[in-house]
Amino acid sequence: MKTLARSTLAASALVLSFAAAGAAQADEGMWTFDNFPSAKVKQTYGVDIDQKWLDTVRASAVRLTTGCSASVVSGQGLVLTNNHCVADCTQALSSEGKDYVKDGFLTGAREEELKCAGMQAEVLLSILDVTDQVKAAGAGKTGQDFVKARDAAFATAELAACGQDKTLRCQTISFYRGGQYKVYKYRRYADVRLVFAPEYATAFFGGDPDNFNFPRFNLDSAFLRLYEDGKPAVTPSHLAWRATAPVEGEPTFVAGNPGTTQRQLTVSQLETNRDLIIPIGQLQRSEMRGRLIQFGEQNEENKRIANQPLAGVENSYKVFFGQQFVLSDKKFMDAKRAAETDLRTKVAADPKLAAEIGDPWSEIDKAQAAVADQFVPMRQLETSAGGGSDLYGYARTLVRGAQERAKPSAERLPEYGDTRLPLAEKRLLDKRPVDAPLEQLYLEHWLLKTREYLTADAPAVKLLLGKESPEGLSARLVAGSKLADPAVRKALWDGGLAAVQASDDPMIQFVLKTEGLGREVRKTYEASVTAPTDAAAERIAKARFAVLGDSVYPDATFSLRLSYGKVAGWTHRGRTITPFTDFAGFYDRVTGAEPFQAAPRWIAAKDKLNPKTVYDYVTTNDIIGGNSGSPVIDAKGRVIGAAFDGNIHSLGGAFGYDGSINRTVVVSTAAITEALTKVYGREALVKELVSGK
Amino acid sequence: MKTLARSTLAASALVLSFAAAGAAQADEGMWTFDNFPSAKVKQTYGVDIDQKWLDTVRASAVRLTTGCSASVVSGQGLVLTNNHCVADCTQALSSEGKDYVKDGFLTGAREEELKCAGMQAEVLLSILDVTDQVKAAGAGKTGQDFVKARDAAFATAELAACGQDKTLRCQTISFYRGGQYKVYKYRRYADVRLVFAPEYATAFFGGDPDNFNFPRFNLDSAFLRLYEDGKPAVTPSHLAWRATAPVEGEPTFVAGNPGTTQRQLTVSQLETNRDLIIPIGQLQRSEMRGRLIQFGEQNEENKRIANQPLAGVENSYKVFFGQQFVLSDKKFMDAKRAAETDLRTKVAADPKLAAEIGDPWSEIDKAQAAVADQFVPMRQLETSAGGGSDLYGYARTLVRGAQERAKPSAERLPEYGDTRLPLAEKRLLDKRPVDAPLEQLYLEHWLLKTREYLTADAPAVKLLLGKESPEGLSARLVAGSKLADPAVRKALWDGGLAAVQASDDPMIQFVLKTEGLGREVRKTYEASVTAPTDAAAERIAKARFAVLGDSVYPDATFSLRLSYGKVAGWTHRGRTITPFTDFAGFYDRVTGAEPFQAAPRWIAAKDKLNPKTVYDYVTTNDIIGGNSGSPVIDAKGRVIGAAFDGNIHSLGGAFGYDGSINRTVVVSTAAITEALTKVYGREALVKELVSGK
Repeated sequence: MKTLARSTLAASALVLSFAAAGAAQADEGMWTFDNFPSAKVKQTYGVDIDQKWLDTVRASAVRLTTGCSASVVSGQGLVLTNNHCVADCTQALSSEGKDYVKDGFLTGAREEELKCAGMQAEVLLSILDVTDQVKAAGAGKTGQDFVKARDAAFATAELAACGQDKTLRCQTISFYRGGQYKVYKYRRYADVRLVFAPEYATAFFGGDPDNFNFPRFNLDSAFLRLYEDGKPAVTPSHLAWRATAPVEGEPTFVAGNPGTTQRQLTVSQLETNRDLIIPIGQLQRSEMRGRLIQFGEQNEENKRIANQPLAGVENSYKVFFGQQFVLSDKKFMDAKRAAETDLRTKVAADPKLAAEIGDPWSEIDKAQAAVADQFVPMRQLETSAGGGSDLYGYARTLVRGAQERAKPSAERLPEYGDTRLPLAEKRLLDKRPVDAPLEQLYLEHWLLKTREYLTADAPAVKLLLGKESPEGLSARLVAGSKLADPAVRKALWDGGLAAVQASDDPMIQFVLKTEGLGREVRKTYEASVTAPTDAAAERIAKARFAVLGDSVYPDATFSLRLSYGKVAGWTHRGRTITPFTDFAGFYDRVTGAEPFQAAPRWIAAKDKLNPKTVYDYVTTNDIIGGNSGSPVIDAKGRVIGAAFDGNIHSLGGAFGYDGSINRTVVVSTAAITEALTKVYGREALVKELVSGK
Repeated sequence: MKTLARSTLAASALVLSFAAAGAAQADEGMWTFDNFPSAKVKQTYGVDIDQKWLDTVRASAVRLTTGCSASVVSGQGLVLTNNHCVADCTQALSSEGKDYVKDGFLTGAREEELKCAGMQAEVLLSILDVTDQVKAAGAGKTGQDFVKARDAAFATAELAACGQDKTLRCQTISFYRGGQYKVYKYRRYADVRLVFAPEYATAFFGGDPDNFNFPRFNLDSAFLRLYEDGKPAVTPSHLAWRATAPVEGEPTFVAGNPGTTQRQLTVSQLETNRDLIIPIGQLQRSEMRGRLIQFGEQNEENKRIANQPLAGVENSYKVFFGQQFVLSDKKFMDAKRAAETDLRTKVAADPKLAAEIGDPWSEIDKAQAAVADQFVPMRQLETSAGGGSDLYGYARTLVRGAQERAKPSAERLPEYGDTRLPLAEKRLLDKRPVDAPLEQLYLEHWLLKTREYLTADAPAVKLLLGKESPEGLSARLVAGSKLADPAVRKALWDGGLAAVQASDDPMIQFVLKTEGLGREVRKTYEASVTAPTDAAAERIAKARFAVLGDSVYPDATFSLRLSYGKVAGWTHRGRTITPFTDFAGFYDRVTGAEPFQAAPRWIAAKDKLNPKTVYDYVTTNDIIGGNSGSPVIDAKGRVIGAAFDGNIHSLGGAFGYDGSINRTVVVSTAAITEALTKVYGREALVKELVSGK
């Protein structure tokens, strides 16, 4: 009998018991492909992970620029990912009365496959170490000089590796928080099309209540296809499809792009997250959540357009709820404190090392006062300016793009450097719907919160609002802007600064008037927070290497990693959760009321499906947000599922991994195969998967 | 030149620098009338506060059961309070197309004064010490026995003091967290009518952005009248009206009912507030805020009905935002820790005292684990059950009232004891509008959050929802319930348990089925949290008396207190804020866009008003929420304003008072007099105020 045991969101469920730092424990780690602990895996699981295995997996692993992972699963560019990773695409392809999100997107032939706006797929080709040149560029510099020199070194390294080849993308990435700098060189696929996505009720059955919980019953999978020159890409490197479910205890590997972890932050940085950064984000997010719920209840069309944004907000809410409660846990923070003290003690015991390292911890402590002063203005005026409005985002890209492109690449804001422009341009110019009522909601919320947090009398707020209210200003900007039209954006992009300045578009005018507020606060922030923090972090990384060697893995940076583990349930507070669910369990959980409704196709197919088919399962792999869509791979390198979630205990994974309860949640290839065949009648797709051709 | 200086909501603005405990500092304290530090006031300000002064003020001070304070200001029962204290009444008297909140409520004659539903006014007659008998009742008991015995002792003491006299109300109140128990005996006025309330744009000019800030420009004042037997009450005890503004440095006294402070909590209790109780409340509150904003934007009528609820949510949000950031401040918590250690050290140094006190701090520490386990279910299933829905509240009063009245008074849930029934009955049966769309919103939000926090699989959630969704269930209950009709409620109340059980009202049926969930969790909570905490707190109070004598004041308990201070601005981060604003400053701040719009009457009256009239001012008095509407009194006992807010720094006042920056914000009687005369043309009212007749 399956034990149903969802944990409450109370603090007690989120208390982890891991060693807060030091060498990785069993199954812990998001390893880079150039430092994978094959010996340890051999020793633990008896599996040989050789260079050939690593190369095949690397060449089949896909990063989606929309924030997800995926894998190539046929020779014709077919890609497996999660449904929630293509939701933005499905949404963009929908319109009033045609809702692919709700009803699913089911192609029968190649010509029905449709382009995903703004989505780019990237396959890692090679890794270049540029640590020395980046460190040399920043050496001896402080403040803005440090930040500028390092940004320029990044851009130079990228250009040297990729040139102007638009089929490539090069990205300089900091590992170990400044311990190493590497250029990741990717094959770039700018034309990615949607092939298959199930219904929302199938992919996200149980909705927010079941999210981050297990047992789970979600077909959170989807297929994309890479295109080159308007034709399916030829992809000889791909994973073989295994349509049988793994067994309990079977070794599993996850190749993907974990987004961000903060396991190597200092205690004072964690405290700043706990006391300031997370709470401010959560409070604003909760208010937005309420607005989106209420907005969606107004009518069917509102519900359709708000559905995906709401799911996104609710997902983030749960993530940060977990993070906050872990950081509020005394035992956890005591362990972090002890680990930091231990490292500092070891450094102090080695006079040569101590002289080299200095006291970066105190430098970072000191920078926290600057964070306390500047985090809120930085958030409201720069990093979250516009509050998620696409029109605002387009206007800012147009305004800043025009301003920055007039300068040499290395002197620009880094996001407008030559190597970044192709993606920025794609995002700007791809056609996608703009939902005016949502645009207004986002802008208004942003302006309201900015006035609330900075006060009505702050000069920045006076510049933003003038004599208008947030409600009135946002309505005027959205109603008057023509930037929803890609042709208008293209003309302004091509026209450069002169065209932008001559535009009478109210959103362009608003951004021209106010974007300087963000530049100004960003400059202050980079000089007083980023520069001292990064310079100090480089020395902490050095200390860690000196003490721990390369037995450690770097914090996640949305770059390709490999984790190892096995299929396993867990026991918490005396309750044991077995690792598998099946189709029978799904039908048991259906109530008929949202979000526990089954899609009509699934009700119809009930008798045709094998009820014992493994639906979802959990493994001990160490993953985090960004890993969504990652292939779960068996010892032979075959794909056996797509990772789509973690259990409730994994929410602390941002700060540490506890192998006893931290679990990855996977949709099985067995379930996908069975559903494609018996629910959706997609035999051609199954044939392509099974044959690999 | 007036310095405009609103502080940001960033953490830095909320850091207080006060001594966290020990004897009160200058101007600190919410003193009871039977322990007012007259000698200290004489010494500091040279003012004699004698018994006659105290008696007159006590007999003129009014507690409003809606959560505010007020004062009698004429011999005919005229009462001064804040506009925001009568907003609920103004709202209840309004309807679609007739919006007294927005347009103000301006009576010209007695017969136009209208009854405020659910509002009761109470004037303190005497104080009886019942400490010995209450302590004796609880002595040697633990868990539920302790709670039950103490509740019974409270009820017995109240009945002994007031009997069944319905013109009286007796309430047993714990002071110093169990250090003393006293019965407060009040004259009860159940018929309170609205006389005058200004427009929302006038009373709450600047809206949420200016709330808890200064300089301020709000006529946050209103008048009520006490009635007896359908006629204005004769009130020989009242405060004299002084229509001239105070001068800088002038001594000021505030008599009112501060709601809750937590200055005497232990460090572990403060941590529980910081890490669990406040964050959970704030997150749910923010979501509700977003829903109400969005709801109000749907149409004019929604805006009208959501306006007051939204203002309430936003006010609470700011209060708890401040509290959370103060509790996250290391220096503040270190000071609290040091004060606790100091008290414990002094107790330990006195063997006799130590034997008597034991270690109540550790007992309270231990109870925090029970809070962590039970706070969320207690909140969702009992204290916040129904989420603020009036229909749910009526149904619960009817169901529990019927169940409890069948028992002897001392055995009931205390809120249904004989001495509490008159107010409960008044609240249940007074006629007031029920806004169905808001009802649905509240209920749905509550059910959604309950499912989210307890999980979809919790037995409690399954009982609440069955196979329905929160959306569907709430819609069904609100659409089907007839409890909006006072006659229906009256029939069920009079009919008792048989009538309630026979009712087919879906809300009654729902509450009958589910209210036991709340009783159950409450029982557990009382036994494992309330009982050990209160028993330990009694001994901490004893320790504090032993060490500090009666030089301390008790935490606020929404009972009558007197604070002293003076008119004074403050200096923070190098900026000095002067203590007065005037009408000229108000007109300067008008932008024409909400919430900085002036009401039409004020635009019309601009040239008639003396621009130098003192509008609002700040004093050093130590107050907190519940004090709203309190008379600000001069040395001669004359009213010179109504306290309506604190400055941003006062948000930490829940945990401690910092005389250098903590300020009370007051609307002056000078401004009220001038406005009544020149803006509103209410000469009769002014005459009554000035003559006192």
